[in-house]
Amino acid sequence: MDALQEVQQEVLVRALDALFIIQGGALVLLMHAGFAFVEVGTVRRKNQANGLCRVLCDLSVSVLAYTLIGSVIFAWPFSPPAIWSSWAAPADIWPRHFFILLSIAAIPAIISGGIAERVRFVPQLLATALIMAFLFPFLDALVVHDRFGFQAQLCCWFAAPFHDYADAVVIHGFAGWAALAATLVIGPRQGRFGPKGRKDFPPSNIPFMALGTWILMVGWFGFTVLAVPAIHQINGLVVMNVVMAMAGGIVAGLIIGRGDTGFIHNGALSGLVAICAGADVMHPLAALLTGSVASVGFVLIFTRIQQRRRVDDVLGVWPLHGVNGIWGVVAAGLFGQTALGGLGGVSLYAQIVGALVGIVVGFIGGLLVYGLIHLFIGLRLSPEQEARGADLSLHRIRSSRNE
Amino acid sequence: MDALQEVQQEVLVRALDALFIIQGGALVLLMHAGFAFVEVGTVRRKNQANGLCRVLCDLSVSVLAYTLIGSVIFAWPFSPPAIWSSWAAPADIWPRHFFILLSIAAIPAIISGGIAERVRFVPQLLATALIMAFLFPFLDALVVHDRFGFQAQLCCWFAAPFHDYADAVVIHGFAGWAALAATLVIGPRQGRFGPKGRKDFPPSNIPFMALGTWILMVGWFGFTVLAVPAIHQINGLVVMNVVMAMAGGIVAGLIIGRGDTGFIHNGALSGLVAICAGADVMHPLAALLTGSVASVGFVLIFTRIQQRRRVDDVLGVWPLHGVNGIWGVVAAGLFGQTALGGLGGVSLYAQIVGALVGIVVGFIGGLLVYGLIHLFIGLRLSPEQEARGADLSLHRIRSSRNE
Amino acid sequence: MDALQEVQQEVLVRALDALFIIQGGALVLLMHAGFAFVEVGTVRRKNQANGLCRVLCDLSVSVLAYTLIGSVIFAWPFSPPAIWSSWAAPADIWPRHFFILLSIAAIPAIISGGIAERVRFVPQLLATALIMAFLFPFLDALVVHDRFGFQAQLCCWFAAPFHDYADAVVIHGFAGWAALAATLVIGPRQGRFGPKGRKDFPPSNIPFMALGTWILMVGWFGFTVLAVPAIHQINGLVVMNVVMAMAGGIVAGLIIGRGDTGFIHNGALSGLVAICAGADVMHPLAALLTGSVASVGFVLIFTRIQQRRRVDDVLGVWPLHGVNGIWGVVAAGLFGQTALGGLGGVSLYAQIVGALVGIVVGFIGGLLVYGLIHLFIGLRLSPEQEARGADLSLHRIRSSRNE
Repeated sequence: MDALQEVQQEVLVRALDALFIIQGGALVLLMHAGFAFVEVGTVRRKNQANGLCRVLCDLSVSVLAYTLIGSVIFAWPFSPPAIWSSWAAPADIWPRHFFILLSIAAIPAIISGGIAERVRFVPQLLATALIMAFLFPFLDALVVHDRFGFQAQLCCWFAAPFHDYADAVVIHGFAGWAALAATLVIGPRQGRFGPKGRKDFPPSNIPFMALGTWILMVGWFGFTVLAVPAIHQINGLVVMNVVMAMAGGIVAGLIIGRGDTGFIHNGALSGLVAICAGADVMHPLAALLTGSVASVGFVLIFTRIQQRRRVDDVLGVWPLHGVNGIWGVVAAGLFGQTALGGLGGVSLYAQIVGALVGIVVGFIGGLLVYGLIHLFIGLRLSPEQEARGADLSLHRIRSSRNE
Repeated sequence: MDALQEVQQEVLVRALDALFIIQGGALVLLMHAGFAFVEVGTVRRKNQANGLCRVLCDLSVSVLAYTLIGSVIFAWPFSPPAIWSSWAAPADIWPRHFFILLSIAAIPAIISGGIAERVRFVPQLLATALIMAFLFPFLDALVVHDRFGFQAQLCCWFAAPFHDYADAVVIHGFAGWAALAATLVIGPRQGRFGPKGRKDFPPSNIPFMALGTWILMVGWFGFTVLAVPAIHQINGLVVMNVVMAMAGGIVAGLIIGRGDTGFIHNGALSGLVAICAGADVMHPLAALLTGSVASVGFVLIFTRIQQRRRVDDVLGVWPLHGVNGIWGVVAAGLFGQTALGGLGGVSLYAQIVGALVGIVVGFIGGLLVYGLIHLFIGLRLSPEQEARGADLSLHRIRSSRNE
Repeated sequence: MDALQEVQQEVLVRALDALFIIQGGALVLLMHAGFAFVEVGTVRRKNQANGLCRVLCDLSVSVLAYTLIGSVIFAWPFSPPAIWSSWAAPADIWPRHFFILLSIAAIPAIISGGIAERVRFVPQLLATALIMAFLFPFLDALVVHDRFGFQAQLCCWFAAPFHDYADAVVIHGFAGWAALAATLVIGPRQGRFGPKGRKDFPPSNIPFMALGTWILMVGWFGFTVLAVPAIHQINGLVVMNVVMAMAGGIVAGLIIGRGDTGFIHNGALSGLVAICAGADVMHPLAALLTGSVASVGFVLIFTRIQQRRRVDDVLGVWPLHGVNGIWGVVAAGLFGQTALGGLGGVSLYAQIVGALVGIVVGFIGGLLVYGLIHLFIGLRLSPEQEARGADLSLHRIRSSRNE
C-alpha cells in the first residue's frame, strides 16, 4: 500500500466515522419529536401546543447551553473547548459533539414530561440551561470521563469500572430522578387530588401518544447501536439485545397491564431504557428478561404512584426512566457476568455504586435546580392560567379546531 | 498491503456490512409504524387504539416467535440456530437476523389490516406466532433458501430460478393471500352488509392514514435498497426503479381513482409492492409501467370487492399486497427480459410457478391458521364488543377526547 | 496493494458513495411528508385531505417531469441523459439522480403551501410539471452547472463564484419567490379580507403542523450534510452549523414571537433555510447569528404581510423560503469571509448577484408559469368549491370524523 492509498484509506475511515455518528445524531434528534408527541398525546388537549413548544425550545436551549458553556466547563482545563478553539479541521470534532449534544438534550425533555400541564415556560427553560451548562457536565465528567478518579476507584475496589453502555443511568436514570425531584417541588396538577379522592386525566389522543412511542423506538436504535466512538466498534449484538428487550417489554406490558394501551406502549420504552446499560455484554435471552422485568416494574410502580398525593408525574417519567435506568445498570451487572451467559468485565457492586451516584446527583441536583427556581422565580403557572390551559394562557392558541 | 492493514480493511468492511443492514432494519421497523397509522386512519374511531396495540404486540410476538422458534426450525438441521449457539462473535449474525426479523414481521402486520375492527386480541397474536414460528419458515426454506430443491428444479425446467429481489411474493404476496383467507374465515364487520345493501365505513382520519403511507414510503427504501447481503452489492438501479414505480402508482391512482384520497395514497403503496420483485433487473421505464399497472389493478379490484359480501377487507390488503405481489413477480418475469429492456436472467414461467406457490402457501396456510383458531378458540369479538368498539371493550379507553 | 485489493477498495468506495447519497435522498423524501403535514396542520380542516393529495401528486409529477424531460434538457447537448442512455452500470448514475430529484421536488411542494385552500388540482400539477421540466433546469444549468459561463463571469469579476452549499437560493429562494408570484396571481382566499378588515384563519391542527416541522428538521440533515458529491467530502462543520442555526431560529422565534407556536416552529425552519448557503464556510457562532436573524426576519415580515391585501401566503412560504434563502446567501458572503471567522473563498458581491438571479428567475418564472395557466386554464377553484372546501369538492371526503 503506497502512501497515497494509505491517505485515501484514512480519509475514508474518517468520513465514515463522521457519517455514522451524524446519522446516529439525526436519529436522536428524531427522538425529541418522540418526546414531544408522547406528551401531546398524554396531556389534556388544552396543553398540547404548550408541550410541543416546550420540547422544541428545551432542545434549543440545551444546544446552546451545552455547546457554549457545558462542553467548555467539561473540557476545561483539560483541553480547549470545541466552540472557542480552532475549527479548521472540524470534521473530527463536530459529529460526535452533535451526537452527544442531542443525546443529553433528552434529559430536560424527559423531565419536562413529569411536570407538564402546570409549569411556567421561561423558568423551565432556565432549569434546562442550568442542567445542561452545569449539572450534567459534572456527572459526565465524574462517570463517563473519569475526571475525578471515580472509575479508577471502582476498578480498584471491584476489579471493574461502572459499565453503562448507552447511558441508562447517565441520561435516563439521572433525568428520571431529577424529574422526581421536580415533580415533588412543583406539586400535583389542579383537581388531580380532591377531597373525594383522585381524579384521573385520561390521555387526550392515543394516536399521538403511540406516534411518539414509535418515533422513540426507531430513534433508540441510533441512540444505542451508533453510540460507539468509531465505526469499527459497531456491535451487532447490541441491535439484537435492543429488539429483544423491546419485545419483552411490550409483551410483559400487555400481560401485566391487562391490555392497557399506555402500558403496552410504555412497555416498549421500559425495555429500551433498561437495555441501554448492558446491551453490549448480555445474551439476547437475558435482554428479553431485562426488558420484561422493566415493563412489569413500570406497570406496578406507575399504578402505585397514581395513588400517591405528592407525586403527580404526568408521563410517568420517574418509573420509566428513573427506575428502569437503575434496573438496567443493575441488570448489566447481573447478566453481564459470564456465569449468567454474559461477556464479563462487569461488577454488580460497581454497577450499584454507579446507580447510586446517578440517583443522588439526579435527585439532589433536580431538587436544587427546580427548588431554587421555584423559590426565587416561581416554577408554576397561576391557578387561572393552569385552569384555562397553557395553550390559551401562554400561546394564545387552541391546539386544534374543527372549523 | 501488510497484514495489519488487511485486518483493518476486513474489520471496516464487516462493520459497514453490519451498519448498513442495521439501518435497513431500522427503516423496516419504521414501516411497522406505517402499518399502524394506515390502520388508525382507516378504521372507525372506536377501534383506533386497538389497531395501535395490535400492531405493536404483533411485532413483539413476531420477534419472539421467529427468533426463538422459526429461525431455529429454519436452521435445523443445517446449521446451529443463532439464538442457541455461541454468540461470541455476534456482529456478523445479528444485524442480518434483525433485518429479516423486522421484514417478515410485516406479514402479520399486513394480515392484521384485513381483519381489523372485529378480531379478538390474543387469538390473533396466536395466529401471528404460528405464522412466524412455522408457516413462514417453511415458505422461506422452500423459495429463498432452496432447502427442498425447489429453485434447482425451476432452473432445470426454465433455465432460471424464481426471482424475487425484495420479497414481493415471499412477504407481500404471501401475506396478502393469507389475509384473504383470514378475511373469509372471520366474515364481514357488523352492519357492513344489511338487507338494504352495503354500508360504507369511511376512514376516520385521513391525516393519520396519509402519515402511515408516508412512513411506509420512506421505510420502503430500507426494505428494498438495503435488501442485499453485503454493502458492495448495493445497487443504484433499485432506488430509481422504486421511485419510478411509486410515482407511476400515484399518478395512475389519481387518474383512475378520480381524485380519491385513498386511491392516491394506496397507489404509492401498490407501485412499491409491485416493484419489489424486479427492482434489480428492470429498466426505470418498465418500473414506471409496473407501478402504474399495479395501481390501476388496485383501484379496479378494490372497487369490485367492496360489493362482494364475503370479503370485508378493511384496508384492502389482499388487492394491495396479495394481487400486487403476484403482479410484481410476473412483471419481473416480463420486463426483466433483455428483449423488453431488462437485464435478463429471469424466466416468466419460473416467476409464474413461484407466484402460484406463494398464493397456495399463503391461502392454504392462512385458512389453516386462522380457520383452526376460529374453530377451536374463536377469532371474532362478541357482537356487543364489536358494536361498542374494540377500544372500550378491550382496552377500556377512548382513542381521543376533546377535554 | 495488489490489483485485486485495489478493485475491492474501489468497489467499496463506490458502494459507499451510492449508499450515503441514497440515505440522503430517503431523508429528503421524508421532508416531503414534512411539507404535507405542515400544510395539513395549518389549513382549515375542510382542506386537509386536499393538501395531502396535492403534496403526494406534486412529488410524483416532479419525479416524472424531471426524470423524463428536465434532466434530459439539462444534459443535452452536453451528455446523454440518464433515463435514455445505457443503464448497464447504473449504480453510479441513479443514486445522485434520486437525491437531486427529491431535493428539487421540494420546489413545487414549497410553492403549494402558499396557494393552498383555493388552487385547482390538475392546473397546479401542470405548473409543477412546467417548473420541473423547464424552469428549474434552466436555473440549475445557469448557477450550479455553469452552462452559460455565469459562474466563470462571477469569478472573473469578484474573484469568487456564487457559493450556495445546499441550495438556499437554487431551491428555497427560487421556490419562495415563485410562490410570491403564484400567490399574487391567484389572489387571497375567500373571506380573508372583507369590508370590515382582515379575518384570520387559525391553524386547524397544531400537532400536525408541529409534526411536519419535526419531520422537516430531521430530513434537513439529509438535505445538508449529505449534499456532497462523494463520501470523503462529508463535512462535520455542516452538521454543527445546521444545529446552531436551528437552535438560534427557535430561540429568536420564541422571543420575538412572544411565545407564538407558529413562530417557534417556523423559527426552526427559518434557521434551517438560511444556513443552507454557507453551512460549510461559517463559524458555528456565525451560524447561530444567521439562524436567529432569519427567524426575526420571518416574524417581522410574516406579521407585516398578514395586513397586506394582495398577498395571502397561507404557510408563509415567501418569508420562510424566499426571504430567508436570500438572507442565507448574503450571510454566507458575510460570515464566510475570514475576517468574520469564516473559511473564505466567498465574495459578498457574487452572493448578491446570485441572489438577484434567483429572485428574478423565481419571480418572473413563477409569474409566467402560474400567470399563463391562470389566464388560459384557470388556477382557482370556483367560489362554491372553495367555500365547501377542497376535500368535499375535489375528493368527496371529509378529513376526519368522530364516528
